[in-house]
Amino acid sequence: MKRIGVFTSGGDAPGMNAAIRAVVRTGVAAGLEVVGIRSGYEGMIAGDLIPLGPRDVANTLQRGGTMLFTARSKEFLTPEGRAKAAANLRTAGVEGLVCIGGDGSYRGALKLMQEHDIPVVGAPGTIDNDLYGSDYTIGFDTAVNIALDAIDRIRDTAASHSRVFFIEVMGRHAGFIALEVGIAGGAEVIVLPEDPVDPSVCAEVIRDSSRKGKRSSIVVVAEGGYPGGAQGLAEAVKTRSGIEPKVTVLGHIQRGGSPTAMDRVLASRLGAAGVEALLAGKRGVAVGQINDEIALTPLEEAVQQRKDINRLKYKLAQVLAL
Amino acid sequence: MKRIGVFTSGGDAPGMNAAIRAVVRTGVAAGLEVVGIRSGYEGMIAGDLIPLGPRDVANTLQRGGTMLFTARSKEFLTPEGRAKAAANLRTAGVEGLVCIGGDGSYRGALKLMQEHDIPVVGAPGTIDNDLYGSDYTIGFDTAVNIALDAIDRIRDTAASHSRVFFIEVMGRHAGFIALEVGIAGGAEVIVLPEDPVDPSVCAEVIRDSSRKGKRSSIVVVAEGGYPGGAQGLAEAVKTRSGIEPKVTVLGHIQRGGSPTAMDRVLASRLGAAGVEALLAGKRGVAVGQINDEIALTPLEEAVQQRKDINRLKYKLAQVLAL
Amino acid sequence: MKRIGVFTSGGDAPGMNAAIRAVVRTGVAAGLEVVGIRSGYEGMIAGDLIPLGPRDVANTLQRGGTMLFTARSKEFLTPEGRAKAAANLRTAGVEGLVCIGGDGSYRGALKLMQEHDIPVVGAPGTIDNDLYGSDYTIGFDTAVNIALDAIDRIRDTAASHSRVFFIEVMGRHAGFIALEVGIAGGAEVIVLPEDPVDPSVCAEVIRDSSRKGKRSSIVVVAEGGYPGGAQGLAEAVKTRSGIEPKVTVLGHIQRGGSPTAMDRVLASRLGAAGVEALLAGKRGVAVGQINDEIALTPLEEAVQQRKDINRLKYKLAQVLAL
Amino acid sequence: MKRIGVFTSGGDAPGMNAAIRAVVRTGVAAGLEVVGIRSGYEGMIAGDLIPLGPRDVANTLQRGGTMLFTARSKEFLTPEGRAKAAANLRTAGVEGLVCIGGDGSYRGALKLMQEHDIPVVGAPGTIDNDLYGSDYTIGFDTAVNIALDAIDRIRDTAASHSRVFFIEVMGRHAGFIALEVGIAGGAEVIVLPEDPVDPSVCAEVIRDSSRKGKRSSIVVVAEGGYPGGAQGLAEAVKTRSGIEPKVTVLGHIQRGGSPTAMDRVLASRLGAAGVEALLAGKRGVAVGQINDEIALTPLEEAVQQRKDINRLKYKLAQVLAL
Repeated sequence: MKRIGVFTSGGDAPGMNAAIRAVVRTGVAAGLEVVGIRSGYEGMIAGDLIPLGPRDVANTLQRGGTMLFTARSKEFLTPEGRAKAAANLRTAGVEGLVCIGGDGSYRGALKLMQEHDIPVVGAPGTIDNDLYGSDYTIGFDTAVNIALDAIDRIRDTAASHSRVFFIEVMGRHAGFIALEVGIAGGAEVIVLPEDPVDPSVCAEVIRDSSRKGKRSSIVVVAEGGYPGGAQGLAEAVKTRSGIEPKVTVLGHIQRGGSPTAMDRVLASRLGAAGVEALLAGKRGVAVGQINDEIALTPLEEAVQQRKDINRLKYKLAQVLAL
Repeated sequence: MKRIGVFTSGGDAPGMNAAIRAVVRTGVAAGLEVVGIRSGYEGMIAGDLIPLGPRDVANTLQRGGTMLFTARSKEFLTPEGRAKAAANLRTAGVEGLVCIGGDGSYRGALKLMQEHDIPVVGAPGTIDNDLYGSDYTIGFDTAVNIALDAIDRIRDTAASHSRVFFIEVMGRHAGFIALEVGIAGGAEVIVLPEDPVDPSVCAEVIRDSSRKGKRSSIVVVAEGGYPGGAQGLAEAVKTRSGIEPKVTVLGHIQRGGSPTAMDRVLASRLGAAGVEALLAGKRGVAVGQINDEIALTPLEEAVQQRKDINRLKYKLAQVLAL
Repeated sequence: MKRIGVFTSGGDAPGMNAAIRAVVRTGVAAGLEVVGIRSGYEGMIAGDLIPLGPRDVANTLQRGGTMLFTARSKEFLTPEGRAKAAANLRTAGVEGLVCIGGDGSYRGALKLMQEHDIPVVGAPGTIDNDLYGSDYTIGFDTAVNIALDAIDRIRDTAASHSRVFFIEVMGRHAGFIALEVGIAGGAEVIVLPEDPVDPSVCAEVIRDSSRKGKRSSIVVVAEGGYPGGAQGLAEAVKTRSGIEPKVTVLGHIQRGGSPTAMDRVLASRLGAAGVEALLAGKRGVAVGQINDEIALTPLEEAVQQRKDINRLKYKLAQVLAL
Repeated sequence: MKRIGVFTSGGDAPGMNAAIRAVVRTGVAAGLEVVGIRSGYEGMIAGDLIPLGPRDVANTLQRGGTMLFTARSKEFLTPEGRAKAAANLRTAGVEGLVCIGGDGSYRGALKLMQEHDIPVVGAPGTIDNDLYGSDYTIGFDTAVNIALDAIDRIRDTAASHSRVFFIEVMGRHAGFIALEVGIAGGAEVIVLPEDPVDPSVCAEVIRDSSRKGKRSSIVVVAEGGYPGGAQGLAEAVKTRSGIEPKVTVLGHIQRGGSPTAMDRVLASRLGAAGVEALLAGKRGVAVGQINDEIALTPLEEAVQQRKDINRLKYKLAQVLAL
């Protein structure tokens, strides 16, 4: 193997640049040439490839977003699109790929490998942490800390006014961010996609908090935790209880910003592991970190299996809201 | 004068605690007793007063929100409510008041003085910066920096995906936050209540940015800058142009958090100036900082006059978006 | 068991308040009374105990330092001191203790148990991460992120001036902080107590970085990584090579500040686990988190065994500095 | 005038990139070509010039340091060096210069103008705020907030341990940073170059704080506030009183990092004003912001006059330490 490609795909996540840097430097240190493919599968089809040396990734470790850009590509969902992408890779002499992204990006990489025999390795880059095969995904810790920072701010205001705040964090299908932020932010209620909440019960917990002398209540709601998200739940609670919650949707601020130490180290390890896996002849696997060690999981398994939230933590959150 | 009261009223603003601390310590240093009135005019009516010594305000300088809480009081809008409040103050021996708040809080204080002859001095505590009589209000600089931090994060994401973001910041009637944040955040368009925007023109600027090679565009919209805020404008732009902006409403995170150095120093100066004004026999005035010096403005003038945004800065913003 | 005590001891660490809060709320939820012992063993000897209910620990989760204070006690090193402490605990009806601290604090707790038959459980609270029995200690992740933030800032300056910076981080006996920060901060050299560095080799790496086109070099030095710390190493490098490094000693800023999400969640889990261990009749054990699960380790083992840094990460750091 | 040059010189300051960006975009908008001179006067002598268009300064507004680098040049202190620099500028067709820097940079620009008739305009870029002709210099507000952040952290630790901390901030000849940070950080004592402190008096204030019930004391010391800085003063205090202060020298972290909103707006205004001054035929002037308006000051005056600290603020600090 002489030349490998690296790209980011799907939603951007803090730490993606650290992963790219690790792929480039580990690759070059092992004698490989590395090319960056810009804008994910879109750039693969368009042939938007650039050579990447150790200096090209200097000063990127601390930057949010992705220097290789990312996009969603409809054309890549077609066999013709993938054929074009594969042809471009061959022309450029790319003999292996490190794909940094989430679920959908993994599926794309898998198809490319199955149809065109291009060795691919996935690295989990998504803030949602909902990828099987790694305890944490690149970007998760940063997203959690950004959301937490917002909650700390809102608590100042909530306590000054004796108010109830419903705060929506990312997580359409998985409650990892909501659970972590909810515990760390001292939320009175945490609402996860994994565990439907009854608005009447939610209202009762808020009223009970108030009876216990709390000046304010914070409810952390994952996007997919209730139909209509935090706004939907707030209205349901209001209807049933007369409580008038304020709603804040954190939105895209959770995606950006300089990655935390944990995300930079994780991304660095996984980027390096991706190259090592290719060099070791692995293909169709996702690299991950499990119990602080590098682990490989077949991409097929990674996209099919579901990672569960830690139920013990969820229970703990309820006790701590006492 | 032997005893004075201090309270916060209206929306909370970072730096209010620094102002309270300055009132207490300056007051005590001058031989006064200081009482804190909790939850603004509501607590004044309920008689929720607490004595405040120098140690009671220790370790508050860096905290967001207000340790004296704040609330909106309907009862205080009635003559009976104000009579109750005045009676409580007299019973407690409170001979002067420092009111930290915005426009509405100033009006309340003025009424209390006019009807019950209680000396009041106002200090401008509101993130919106829309109070006449001070170049800057307590909390403005912090709110601007929090919003800026959010915009920096969103730009990472916007640039990674080639996207257009509409970001709503606070400011129903005044565009101070939007203007400052827009310049500091490098916004392509800044939409202020003071200056109506045509969605078609806005769309044209965005398209032009893209033609010039910008990977992303940020439009900063003050709450009151367009009917329906950022969401309303985004839809209008979409209808006219086909551009599909992402919308983020920063909301209450702008209110909270540890105050910046500028807000802490400003609040400290204005809190101290409030006490000095009372001791100097001033009444019915607002303290402010104009050209780095303490200035007094009659409360009547402060609530009637309008502070204008700096038009030169607004023009500068357009040049810098080149 | 009806009443338990909780205290913090040794150097303070961000997250200690989250652990105290978890002890109190988990304890009360289980029907226990909880008392806080102030200033560690010093307060235990002086009888400085305060009852702690769920509201007393409200609004502490996000605060740095420790609300129960901490101190080093010489008297507790004597049998008489420990006898006094034990007598005070008995008088107050304290039937079990959760000790949050490091190595020295664990040793003290162990002696107290051995001599006076008081059930103790330790929870690892130290930024250094050098305690056996837990993958991470409370405060480590925050300290790493604070140090990283400082390094990001210094890199701006270093790159603007083409300079070499030696930055000293905490870690007298263990290089956990230095290693993590070094990888996350993109350090050219990382100097650990676990691995002596030759100043000439260090100088050669710096010169090589410059030859490779890097505008600046960052050397991260653990306190105990070289005699005289970063300053000592800088002088040795200067003597041997003529390179003139700037030196920054981060010092105590690494200890303070609002804990990260990871530290708050870890502290919450370990605080709760401490109470559960006492209730389950465990004594003389340290709670920890190993592979994301709660683990118990005998205190004797915890103070005798040594936790090693991850050598693979250390090698990775060298590759990534390419 | 068809082509102008811009450069940064002396110590780097957060906001320099925002000023460069404003020079480029305002210049281009006015029909000028703009070239960047790298590494200050050193690059001017070496002919290290690069063309700068609007896109070249994209995404720099939020970055610390300076994209044009900075250096100190011994050769420029000689007439021969300046002649070389002037010749390079003429060859490149540079007809005017915007110099972003401090005192020494202004002197250099002045000499270049006097000896070689090249129109120069200065813009105040230095964290120290000690330049006459502008209320604030670019980088000051950011440096103050970074130092404040460090002090907030140290206070957590100081209060947990009942300790006295001496914290050294930048300011060899002027106490602007120390004064602002001291007030904002609630320092018990602030030590400025402008006002010698007697260590015995300092010790007495610390003892008095302790008697008043304060758990910790913070002394903020400007670099030039005492021989040997914070360490020197700490030793003098220890000798006279037995107090054992901890010392932290903040050092270079104060220089770096993303600029605050205030610094970005100030830098944007001053960069634009620099270009406008050149276009208006001004030469040998420094642009500044005085009372929120753009002001021009002859460079000769700017380097000779001294800006004083605000004595009223200094007195206020003492009252607030009550």
